[in-house]
Amino acid sequence: VPTGTQCFDWVIPQEWSIRDAYFVDPTGKRHAEFSKCNLHVVSYSEPIDKRVTLDELQQHLHSLPDLPDAVPYVTSYYRRTWGFCLSHRERLALKQGNYRVVIDSELKDGSLTYGELLIPGETRQELLFSTYLCHPSMANNETTGPALAAYLADGLRKRTRRRFSYRFVFAPETIGAIAYLSRHWQELKAHVIAGFMVTCVGDERGYSFLPSRLGGTLADRVATHVLGHLHPGYKRYSFLDRGSDERQYCSPGIDLPVVSIMRSKYGEYPEYHSSLDDLSLISPAGLAGSFDVFTRCIDAIENNERLRVTVLCEPQLGKRGLYPTTSTRESSAHIRTIANFLAYCDGSNDLLGIAERIEVPIWDLYPLAERCKAEGLLETTGS
Amino acid sequence: VPTGTQCFDWVIPQEWSIRDAYFVDPTGKRHAEFSKCNLHVVSYSEPIDKRVTLDELQQHLHSLPDLPDAVPYVTSYYRRTWGFCLSHRERLALKQGNYRVVIDSELKDGSLTYGELLIPGETRQELLFSTYLCHPSMANNETTGPALAAYLADGLRKRTRRRFSYRFVFAPETIGAIAYLSRHWQELKAHVIAGFMVTCVGDERGYSFLPSRLGGTLADRVATHVLGHLHPGYKRYSFLDRGSDERQYCSPGIDLPVVSIMRSKYGEYPEYHSSLDDLSLISPAGLAGSFDVFTRCIDAIENNERLRVTVLCEPQLGKRGLYPTTSTRESSAHIRTIANFLAYCDGSNDLLGIAERIEVPIWDLYPLAERCKAEGLLETTGS
Amino acid sequence: VPTGTQCFDWVIPQEWSIRDAYFVDPTGKRHAEFSKCNLHVVSYSEPIDKRVTLDELQQHLHSLPDLPDAVPYVTSYYRRTWGFCLSHRERLALKQGNYRVVIDSELKDGSLTYGELLIPGETRQELLFSTYLCHPSMANNETTGPALAAYLADGLRKRTRRRFSYRFVFAPETIGAIAYLSRHWQELKAHVIAGFMVTCVGDERGYSFLPSRLGGTLADRVATHVLGHLHPGYKRYSFLDRGSDERQYCSPGIDLPVVSIMRSKYGEYPEYHSSLDDLSLISPAGLAGSFDVFTRCIDAIENNERLRVTVLCEPQLGKRGLYPTTSTRESSAHIRTIANFLAYCDGSNDLLGIAERIEVPIWDLYPLAERCKAEGLLETTGS
Repeated sequence: VPTGTQCFDWVIPQEWSIRDAYFVDPTGKRHAEFSKCNLHVVSYSEPIDKRVTLDELQQHLHSLPDLPDAVPYVTSYYRRTWGFCLSHRERLALKQGNYRVVIDSELKDGSLTYGELLIPGETRQELLFSTYLCHPSMANNETTGPALAAYLADGLRKRTRRRFSYRFVFAPETIGAIAYLSRHWQELKAHVIAGFMVTCVGDERGYSFLPSRLGGTLADRVATHVLGHLHPGYKRYSFLDRGSDERQYCSPGIDLPVVSIMRSKYGEYPEYHSSLDDLSLISPAGLAGSFDVFTRCIDAIENNERLRVTVLCEPQLGKRGLYPTTSTRESSAHIRTIANFLAYCDGSNDLLGIAERIEVPIWDLYPLAERCKAEGLLETTGS
Repeated sequence: VPTGTQCFDWVIPQEWSIRDAYFVDPTGKRHAEFSKCNLHVVSYSEPIDKRVTLDELQQHLHSLPDLPDAVPYVTSYYRRTWGFCLSHRERLALKQGNYRVVIDSELKDGSLTYGELLIPGETRQELLFSTYLCHPSMANNETTGPALAAYLADGLRKRTRRRFSYRFVFAPETIGAIAYLSRHWQELKAHVIAGFMVTCVGDERGYSFLPSRLGGTLADRVATHVLGHLHPGYKRYSFLDRGSDERQYCSPGIDLPVVSIMRSKYGEYPEYHSSLDDLSLISPAGLAGSFDVFTRCIDAIENNERLRVTVLCEPQLGKRGLYPTTSTRESSAHIRTIANFLAYCDGSNDLLGIAERIEVPIWDLYPLAERCKAEGLLETTGS
Repeated sequence: VPTGTQCFDWVIPQEWSIRDAYFVDPTGKRHAEFSKCNLHVVSYSEPIDKRVTLDELQQHLHSLPDLPDAVPYVTSYYRRTWGFCLSHRERLALKQGNYRVVIDSELKDGSLTYGELLIPGETRQELLFSTYLCHPSMANNETTGPALAAYLADGLRKRTRRRFSYRFVFAPETIGAIAYLSRHWQELKAHVIAGFMVTCVGDERGYSFLPSRLGGTLADRVATHVLGHLHPGYKRYSFLDRGSDERQYCSPGIDLPVVSIMRSKYGEYPEYHSSLDDLSLISPAGLAGSFDVFTRCIDAIENNERLRVTVLCEPQLGKRGLYPTTSTRESSAHIRTIANFLAYCDGSNDLLGIAERIEVPIWDLYPLAERCKAEGLLETTGS
């Protein structure tokens, strides 16, 4: 999307490239060297090469007093400025005197780039997965999103059967999502039945959920069902706590059914937006846990349908080998799940609603539904 | 209903009759004698007369280790088998050796029998009471149901005025209800406005309630109102805890408004389905308590109607002798109930809804409604 | 409204005037002198001048054993009687003997008088404020209502802009409101969008709220919002606890959206309906607190409207000076309110609903809404 393109209320900005950045103290020592860590320069800083006093320089420095060894991640859009990020410890050691500040950057017309993958299924109805790439060096709050999204996409592409189509969007946060939506929103509104932000999915701390703007969508229902059964201690945030591209997907008029399933939510863990959000914070196990949750959400939607029993009164399960033939105190418990399942297959509940109603994880019902459909006891009445 | 008749998904089975049953130990002593207690033989056992080792016999014995003196009640439908029930204490004392097992039973074509009583009222709208007879020797979980149902029916038959018709069904559990419904379900769906399972109504422990499948029916509303005022500590079960013929009456497609009001619920008291559920467990007081609850439910429905005040603003109660003429601190409390009652007689609430809203038992409102109708202050706007 | 006029179910009674009242004990000492305190005579007492024994007199005396120094306020409508109110201490000191009772009163045809003020606004839609004047010498439970209502009316009349019209009603409680409604109810039903009883608004104890009959009206919503943010410890009563003219305004068929915002509610404070409810109980600060709450309710309704953002996706706030251009950990919190506000401006929520949803007081949103409308970011979609 070329620089200068109008996307709803926004204009695609110039492209920023950075070659080097640092500042030199009165003794000639270099600090905040971009070549050592790309967090040292404030993103989008304009080019500069001049001498300043320490007092002037301080106006352009960012550090974290509470995390004195961490380099913060700071970005500035739309306002022409420049700045450096460094550890608070290093900042405190700076001495009075003249400093040389060097930022070898460039702002020029270019383009915004996003990635898009559409994996077709049996129907045009789609599940949307959106993630972003714009936070330099961030691990949990950046790389885990595209990594997990790519892995999910790969698995979905290999499935032999997909009832739904799957759309993956990789774009810079905010402006990227806005640019993408400005070109595709009508298509998305026509097809997306559930959407998920994929961000902050790599650490091994708890799980988090952030609902859609008004709540109650299929995405909300399936995410809370899966998390509620797999990780009942998960933290539920309010839409008021949002901070990623659900801000666009759920905005009035767009109103896509998009929720976020996360491990440690952005803004809520100590290492957030600092050099401490590095690879040591995330792990294969952390990502695998998220993969499991997302996969179960996908499977729940793939298997979700409205079901109706084909006979009046309770079906005779015994003749179909579904019922223990001897009635004892103990045996009655064993058939409770199947009886409860069939009792709510009334054509108005979908499988997810039935699972919630009878208080079992939806995945326990897949084989039962399959078996009962094979026996002619159940018919599908809708999605 | 003759053996072999198709009733929805079920077929009426052969009739089982039992003349005698016992087994003989190596010393010649008889055990599990049917003639002493009809629980000793597994219901529906096929005829047998043969010699078996103790090990073989054990495969066919049932006892309750937790209640070593109780004989369990066990039944087997549809699977041809045989077995004996005895106390765990007696079972443990059995010695190795050869045993003779004798079951003098017969399975032959016959019929399923149910009883039905329809007491007509001013309208075809009906209240349904269903109970069952199929558990040999059980007191709370069997005899109390038909006993109370018969007593309720007798009282209703003697009433000089019945706004609604009353249907009583006495049938074997499960197959009997299914057979009954297969012949009458359309009639019931057309007429039944509230239904009640009558089972486990004879002990003196607490009260229990089990709602209809989706809840919120007139039967649910009236039962919880009556129990909530008379026995606020009553235990509320979920429909997932069901276990009697509400399984049929509330099944998808049948969906009758049927709830269960019980004392100790089947499956939830220690003596359940054992020889300990005998006459010592139940009492006239236990049955009388249930009778009172059911009667209040009936009266609540008989008296329920939509009411509307005939004047705008508060009626002048004083000129009708309904209001104390001196206003003191104390007198204001006395007229609160009548004022609250009239305030919600807006033509959209029924008497039950008004009682719930103003937090009084509905029976407190019967004389008020009568009096206000007589004064021309209230008119009926619907049932 | 002349004596004898039929007003719905009521008839305007004769006018009662009182010149003097007292009784004389056997020693010649006067008690319960009306000339010293107008509470000493039961309101509406018929004229009398006769000698009675102490026992006869006691049938006509009222006192408060729990508050032995207080004179109760007692009134008797419609029943011809007479009586005196005095402190319990004085009553206990009365000696046996002959008493002379004197009540120089008069009951004759006259009229009921009410006051009405309609302050026109840009639309015919109205806010109603109703208060009463009929309790002699009561401070919190009488004078504060008309005082605050007059003060509110004065302020509203001076406003340069009033979106809505404002109706103030001053009438005797019960019969006055009924008389007023009998002449104006259709007009009120056509125009009133929110109404407030103004009573018991002068002491410095907590705040109270009494909802409309069915709840959920604009008046209910705005009152609970304002009280919830300003005085979160306010006491919420049920409509069942009502006692003033909401009994008429909210009666079935009238059903105006009228709620009560009070300090200490009538009937709930020890001095209620006694000589202790005097000027020492109320204060300028007590009245000012109520004035603030009512004014914020008025402002909330004046400012309430349905709003919709004019752009899809999040608006670009930076170019409008509404967004900090440097993104740091801290800055994200600052823009949360405006982002949340715009996220719920979807054309279906009114400002009050948005404030509730995003958990801020509505008055925080007035400048934001103004600013965003000026920037063309918001449009009004309805009231």
